[in-house]
Amino acid sequence: MPTLMRQINVISRCGARYRTEKFKPMDLCAPHHSYILNICKKPGISQEQLAEHICVDKSNVTRQIAHLENAGYVTRTQSPDDRRVTLVYPTDKAFSALPYVKETVAFWNSYITQDLTEEENAQLSNMMQKICKRAKQYFEECEADKK
Amino acid sequence: MPTLMRQINVISRCGARYRTEKFKPMDLCAPHHSYILNICKKPGISQEQLAEHICVDKSNVTRQIAHLENAGYVTRTQSPDDRRVTLVYPTDKAFSALPYVKETVAFWNSYITQDLTEEENAQLSNMMQKICKRAKQYFEECEADKK
Repeated sequence: MPTLMRQINVISRCGARYRTEKFKPMDLCAPHHSYILNICKKPGISQEQLAEHICVDKSNVTRQIAHLENAGYVTRTQSPDDRRVTLVYPTDKAFSALPYVKETVAFWNSYITQDLTEEENAQLSNMMQKICKRAKQYFEECEADKK
Repeated sequence: MPTLMRQINVISRCGARYRTEKFKPMDLCAPHHSYILNICKKPGISQEQLAEHICVDKSNVTRQIAHLENAGYVTRTQSPDDRRVTLVYPTDKAFSALPYVKETVAFWNSYITQDLTEEENAQLSNMMQKICKRAKQYFEECEADKK
């Protein structure tokens, strides 16, 4: 039986491949759904908050946001409270893309879980929450150890 | 409640971050565990078979194999049966790295699932298999539609 991480990575990569195809005409790449969704939900979110929420490192966020800015989906500005903090705002183009992005993500979620019963889906969600919590906790403990 | 794909992507990214840290001293990157494991298991595996097994596109495999070749982990050769097919072989360095790679992957798997009972782990594995099958099937159906 494949390990859990093998299964998770396969599902994650297939999802990325699906989004790559769907997003190509919009000049968006596979990871950009997380950005569009979160920036439209919280206009003015900082790059640091995005990195934490999406669980990627800051240099990755900076690179993706630069792409989205060039493609006209977001604007960046320095925080008036702290010049080291960069705030990200969605453009009209981002809000226009939002329904399509949501639909793409929702379709894939329901497609891959079509063989599970409602009860199984609920159990799965519950177990995955426990796993997510541990995965994030690992790095929190590492940070705490450094201090 | 976050969607299943959100949970899967978070766990996948945390796993990648963990491997990035652990693999850095060995000049390996996060995705390379899949390559080292599969190439050591099947010396002479083709790049196409690797792409299919790992669920990434062929250009991605070519790029990662080039990195692994430069770092001394693999050698590449044309198939004697079909010149268009590239076969990949592990070096002694790959076999030396194998126990560390296996240990890194195994630690993370057991770390993130420590809050699940044995029964839950079995249920999870079963559900994830169904989801993996569907995720892969999507692309098989797309390929079939093209024909």
